[in-house]
Amino acid sequence: MNSSMEKPYVVGIDIGGTNTVFGIVDARGTIIASGAVKTQVYPTVEEYADEVCKNLLPLIIANGGVDKIKGIGIGAPNGNYYTGTIEFAPNLPWKGVLPLASMFEERLGIPTALTNDANAAAVGEMTYGAARGMKDFIMITLGTGVGSGIVINGQVVYGHDGFAGELGHVIVRRDGRICGCGRKGCLETYCSATGVARTAREFLAARTDASLLRNIPAESIVSKDVYDAAVQGDKLAQEIFEFTGNILGEALADAIAFSSPEAIILFGGLAKSGDYIMKPIMKAMENNLLNIYKGKAKLLVSELKDSDAAVLGASALAWELKDLRD
Amino acid sequence: MNSSMEKPYVVGIDIGGTNTVFGIVDARGTIIASGAVKTQVYPTVEEYADEVCKNLLPLIIANGGVDKIKGIGIGAPNGNYYTGTIEFAPNLPWKGVLPLASMFEERLGIPTALTNDANAAAVGEMTYGAARGMKDFIMITLGTGVGSGIVINGQVVYGHDGFAGELGHVIVRRDGRICGCGRKGCLETYCSATGVARTAREFLAARTDASLLRNIPAESIVSKDVYDAAVQGDKLAQEIFEFTGNILGEALADAIAFSSPEAIILFGGLAKSGDYIMKPIMKAMENNLLNIYKGKAKLLVSELKDSDAAVLGASALAWELKDLRD
Repeated sequence: MNSSMEKPYVVGIDIGGTNTVFGIVDARGTIIASGAVKTQVYPTVEEYADEVCKNLLPLIIANGGVDKIKGIGIGAPNGNYYTGTIEFAPNLPWKGVLPLASMFEERLGIPTALTNDANAAAVGEMTYGAARGMKDFIMITLGTGVGSGIVINGQVVYGHDGFAGELGHVIVRRDGRICGCGRKGCLETYCSATGVARTAREFLAARTDASLLRNIPAESIVSKDVYDAAVQGDKLAQEIFEFTGNILGEALADAIAFSSPEAIILFGGLAKSGDYIMKPIMKAMENNLLNIYKGKAKLLVSELKDSDAAVLGASALAWELKDLRD
Repeated sequence: MNSSMEKPYVVGIDIGGTNTVFGIVDARGTIIASGAVKTQVYPTVEEYADEVCKNLLPLIIANGGVDKIKGIGIGAPNGNYYTGTIEFAPNLPWKGVLPLASMFEERLGIPTALTNDANAAAVGEMTYGAARGMKDFIMITLGTGVGSGIVINGQVVYGHDGFAGELGHVIVRRDGRICGCGRKGCLETYCSATGVARTAREFLAARTDASLLRNIPAESIVSKDVYDAAVQGDKLAQEIFEFTGNILGEALADAIAFSSPEAIILFGGLAKSGDYIMKPIMKAMENNLLNIYKGKAKLLVSELKDSDAAVLGASALAWELKDLRD
């Protein structure tokens, strides 16, 4: 008897600094029910977990009950796959090491896996998206920061301690921009949405040429403004994307020398900036690759809808869990 | 019946640009018989393979015959594990794609695996050396060039095409030193034995302070001279090691952000330069690590004897082969 016929669903929970989103997902990647709670309003992590379960359980029951759920996958900042804990996440209200996976297992009686957001995105892409059928690829999430999820031989790379895959913090410019991590020149200080806005402010201050971006107070500029200006033919805005893409392409060329992936998959708002960002990334990547890698790695954009991706990615972890424990 | 009792040996073959060395190795990593032929003197790769077999077969027969050999492992420049071929190796006399693994299989009737030298070194270290019991580590070979073999989840990282793990060619200085690969600023232009000699020449030309190295014609300086001078208290020579170790430590910090290994293992003459090189590497590595990685990765020196390491590394591949095909 095939147990996967009996348990057709998984649950994905995405824990963000502001909101926690969850959903029940089928094997084809359709979210058949979903909900959300605020992350910040609970004084203790126990009360938070109670509240998530209180909102999630009715959805589970409405869809056939706990017996229909293979497992729960959680994507969370600073999530450690090996321990199922969130460790010292700066954007969450509860401090220290939080055993979220076991807390959900206890409350719902469903096996639970947990990892960080970018690793969850990689598993989601491999299960439902652009990386279906791939064994070796690198997921790069371009958001407020830059995250990465690395898949080698069909497995997410967690490293010896569960914290592998922080390509947002490789140094791309020695003594470059100050990073939130306390060091200088990290990839994410240049190639995140925040990094793009930072580049805009630098370019506007250092140069005198006209730009639509000068109509916006410098401190208020966001990466979407740069995109809108670029689309309207603004040269300075287009150069911001070229600058950003060039640095990202250089960093990707180095990453390829590490794991020689079949593809790099970009996720997040910036990845949706089309040729303005993709062309410079591709050009810099190819120009900087060692000969043996040239023309091999594909540069792709995530195939998951932004609004669904976090829940889908988290949920995909639970299918993997099934393979391990069933 | 346990087949590993029947086939107690593996064969390791190290194909170098000058010499080809081979040996029969037992499960404890003892080379029980060995030999060598010149690599360069055979007009065709077929004649070369014939000659290696002609020299190897008597050793095999003297130790119980072909039935006692689990497999053959070959370490070779530009070796591709997936295809068992050597592809466009600049230092070998035969051009194009050379199917060495199948050539040995045909001639000796023994399953054969092939990979590049640094990957073979990593498998050797995991099987017989400093990485025994480790599932996640990075082997760095510091020789004429800088090679790397990356192990994740107990498996060598070959990438989608068999060519992963070229950390000697990550860019450590944008627009830095010209590399043999045609690009600029590769790690190996600074941190190979050749890179150390290059640094010595640069330092001697740019500075006027006294140094024992000034007694050697600049073009003749090799990294061993720098080590000898450092041991004698030569300040400039010691600074060359600091410069070299600093760059290597920075590069290792970025590599750790990729795979978060339990250890970095250094192999080759430079790694034997003791504290002169190890202290600056460790210092730069720790200083450049993202907080979550600090104090975790060990920096180790290979435990394999230089003279045996190439054959042991290659031979270790053959034990893995056994697991796959037996």
